[in-house]
Amino acid sequence: PCDLTGWWENDLGSRMHVLEVDSEGNFSGEYHTAVSSADKPIQPSPLVGSQHLDKDGQCTFGFTVNWKKFSDSTAVFVGQCFTGDNGDEVLQTSWLLREKVDSLPSDWKATR
Amino acid sequence: PCDLTGWWENDLGSRMHVLEVDSEGNFSGEYHTAVSSADKPIQPSPLVGSQHLDKDGQCTFGFTVNWKKFSDSTAVFVGQCFTGDNGDEVLQTSWLLREKVDSLPSDWKATR
Amino acid sequence: PCDLTGWWENDLGSRMHVLEVDSEGNFSGEYHTAVSSADKPIQPSPLVGSQHLDKDGQCTFGFTVNWKKFSDSTAVFVGQCFTGDNGDEVLQTSWLLREKVDSLPSDWKATR
Amino acid sequence: PCDLTGWWENDLGSRMHVLEVDSEGNFSGEYHTAVSSADKPIQPSPLVGSQHLDKDGQCTFGFTVNWKKFSDSTAVFVGQCFTGDNGDEVLQTSWLLREKVDSLPSDWKATR
Repeated sequence: PCDLTGWWENDLGSRMHVLEVDSEGNFSGEYHTAVSSADKPIQPSPLVGSQHLDKDGQCTFGFTVNWKKFSDSTAVFVGQCFTGDNGDEVLQTSWLLREKVDSLPSDWKATR
Repeated sequence: PCDLTGWWENDLGSRMHVLEVDSEGNFSGEYHTAVSSADKPIQPSPLVGSQHLDKDGQCTFGFTVNWKKFSDSTAVFVGQCFTGDNGDEVLQTSWLLREKVDSLPSDWKATR
Repeated sequence: PCDLTGWWENDLGSRMHVLEVDSEGNFSGEYHTAVSSADKPIQPSPLVGSQHLDKDGQCTFGFTVNWKKFSDSTAVFVGQCFTGDNGDEVLQTSWLLREKVDSLPSDWKATR
Repeated sequence: PCDLTGWWENDLGSRMHVLEVDSEGNFSGEYHTAVSSADKPIQPSPLVGSQHLDKDGQCTFGFTVNWKKFSDSTAVFVGQCFTGDNGDEVLQTSWLLREKVDSLPSDWKATR
């Protein structure tokens, strides 16, 4: 089955630690980003999310990272687990980063 | 201050119920979507997320909706709270929907 | 049938002028943006694109705006034409804005 | 300087042929996609776009692919040229695919 518990690393060198996944598929953990557009130094940041519990090991999942320790931004990731050619588990994800803007007229540029 | 607790409705008629936000900014709730690309009937779906706790009422936030009750997809939303012209709170959000695909070569088309 | 020729205005107050659409569906024109993240003053910017020529008036289309007159960014828009409740033509579009970054390690943040 | 003229291939095996870039940065060409969500067989498809002409070889660019030969969809790509570690030119791109939908209420799901 699918289980996100553990450590994951992406192509940019960011690392994610997912703690225990509960019976509903909910989980929490910590995201150690390797990249940032913030001015303050990067710090490990809390994440909360949810995954499906499909038997086939190819579940979809999503999570939110709250960068409050060094930024007023929030990021969300959504993806799916696969088994790669070598038998390793691979996560394919897409993300959106919301930066805080001053007012509604600036909303158009807030999301990367 | 910013507090997502309560009911929210979007332009498409989807409704979201956010239960209590804890001292870390984490919350859970239920998403009642008005639209779906799944074959099964829509059902209220659990959400988990996180918000900043800025004093200025313009916090950014994100959350994950697990559509497991009628689909194997997952959605993530990220946004910011604003005060509209009439004094009402308005949420501006962007989203990504991950649909489950069979294999890695189909990954390119999995995310809307 | 579908024909993008003419002036269009969006919710943010940006205006687009599409010149003649040729028999292949190609067109050029000028985009007058109301919003910008560049430092220099906004100027009308050239666009080139392509549309389908479906008989039903609901064609999809796309175009590129080259902001070279005041920025080193490029934007692309993709969308579809609809007829609104009042009989007016409405364009629904999504966009991506590519900002120039210094080097590959910054690529992750280049696109809004 | 930056010049997109020539053949390019991406990770999925799709290939793009850009014909001459004019003095304004406009170009046309043909896109040979390796992947498709359409029912009809894939065919080479016309593209039109625009690039900056920066001296530093790191220009941003965008283009539209009209899939009219086998689909009623349109795709847009936006990106930037880089020089890779081995001296080769590399294009980093993001894309949006617009699929035709029946009516405005389905607009939310039209873009991948």
